[in-house]
Amino acid sequence: MQEASETFRREGKRIGFVPTMGYLHEGHLALVRKARADARVVVVSIFVNPLQFGPQEDFGRYPRAFERDRMLLEQERTDIIFFPDDSEMYPEGYSTYVEVRGLGEHLCGLRREGHFTGVATVVAKLFNAVKPHFAVFGQKDYQQLKIIQRMARDLNMDLEIIGHPTVREEGGLAMSSRNAYLSAEDREKALLISASMTKAEELFRGGERRAGVLAAEVRKILASKDGIDIEYITLCNPDTLNDVGKIERSALLAIALRVGKTRLIDNTILTES
Amino acid sequence: MQEASETFRREGKRIGFVPTMGYLHEGHLALVRKARADARVVVVSIFVNPLQFGPQEDFGRYPRAFERDRMLLEQERTDIIFFPDDSEMYPEGYSTYVEVRGLGEHLCGLRREGHFTGVATVVAKLFNAVKPHFAVFGQKDYQQLKIIQRMARDLNMDLEIIGHPTVREEGGLAMSSRNAYLSAEDREKALLISASMTKAEELFRGGERRAGVLAAEVRKILASKDGIDIEYITLCNPDTLNDVGKIERSALLAIALRVGKTRLIDNTILTES
Repeated sequence: MQEASETFRREGKRIGFVPTMGYLHEGHLALVRKARADARVVVVSIFVNPLQFGPQEDFGRYPRAFERDRMLLEQERTDIIFFPDDSEMYPEGYSTYVEVRGLGEHLCGLRREGHFTGVATVVAKLFNAVKPHFAVFGQKDYQQLKIIQRMARDLNMDLEIIGHPTVREEGGLAMSSRNAYLSAEDREKALLISASMTKAEELFRGGERRAGVLAAEVRKILASKDGIDIEYITLCNPDTLNDVGKIERSALLAIALRVGKTRLIDNTILTES
Repeated sequence: MQEASETFRREGKRIGFVPTMGYLHEGHLALVRKARADARVVVVSIFVNPLQFGPQEDFGRYPRAFERDRMLLEQERTDIIFFPDDSEMYPEGYSTYVEVRGLGEHLCGLRREGHFTGVATVVAKLFNAVKPHFAVFGQKDYQQLKIIQRMARDLNMDLEIIGHPTVREEGGLAMSSRNAYLSAEDREKALLISASMTKAEELFRGGERRAGVLAAEVRKILASKDGIDIEYITLCNPDTLNDVGKIERSALLAIALRVGKTRLIDNTILTES
């Protein structure tokens, strides 16, 4: 991979990169299309990163479908699919970790210990392997995007991090590989997530600036059906991820919950237009 | 710096890098000469990294002599001197750290909390800024060398880490910028370090394989003059840095001590020839 990238760079070819854990959906493909539009060479990695899963999480059963992924990526004119295996990425004696303090200590970072260190570490490794000019990440994983941007800036990585708007299914459910876990009934319940965010956006546009009131409205909608286990509903500063009480110019509304055993996250930025 | 390096790389020019904290001595210059011999472009950085000093350590009074350093580096035909300032390296909101677990939890890592995280972090940053094909480090800082090698391997950094033998003053004292702190009398005492290592090497060649016996001999020599405050005398596995009791094929003998207020380190590898 490094040799190929070095050759492309010597030839002055712009490399765009989309790191994924595979089991691709339209959200991923939108990132690939963004890369395709801006780069001469498009690299997509597929690697289910054990380091970012907790011991009680779904690493083992995380959905995988390499041949289908390959076909989809070829349709999008991906130049290189990079799919290292675990023992290449984490050989015997592996012991180096990249930690982004502060930003990791909010939202999902409070519930998934070590998750963002695992994410930052694998992304640093992938960047060093692929040497892209830019990389595209989805805004559905907003905290991840902010952490990667901070890491890239802090460590003087010579590349641009591009955030891409969340792609949604009809009905508003944010695309996620974990949606594959949902039964038809679960999926129906999961639609309340985007519905609750839409409600918060309406209230915000109507002048509501109290985070507590907006969160309570979101909670009410999510509680309207049984079987939704809310992990957090947070309104925070979009840059620092610090909680806000009264919204000044803008706030991130971030939600994490379980429908049955399936953990889902989503977010939207409330901002004065 | 990145633009210059990208241009060199596109032109196929091999970049050799020597990171330093300045106040250069013959040890540094030996590293620069090594880089000069193997590279088309030689980059030397000068940056006294606040992140690797503890609150009680000598960051503020660490010796600095930029103009002299510049002259010495020009004599060695250094192509680029890279000297970022603190606020460029650690801007407001800086929060990313590179940690090499395991190797950092031995020797100096036990006494200088956060030191090697500071070292690994700044070196990762400098590598990303300079984009060298190889970097040269002195073996006097043996633990640092091993940690950087591990970091580079673990994070898939596309460069080679070269260790260079310790350069010594006449009499055997390892070159160090901190030698500038030593009075004539201190310097006399500091000579016992290399003398004690020579004694250990002799005993090892004579068949002694018990780490405890060798360490005791070193301690006896260092204790023969007043004013030497021993921090550690350790015999350990040169790769893992785990302590050894009986030496199999080889061992690192590592010493840290204070002469007055000045902290000095040195090491040698005992190995069957």
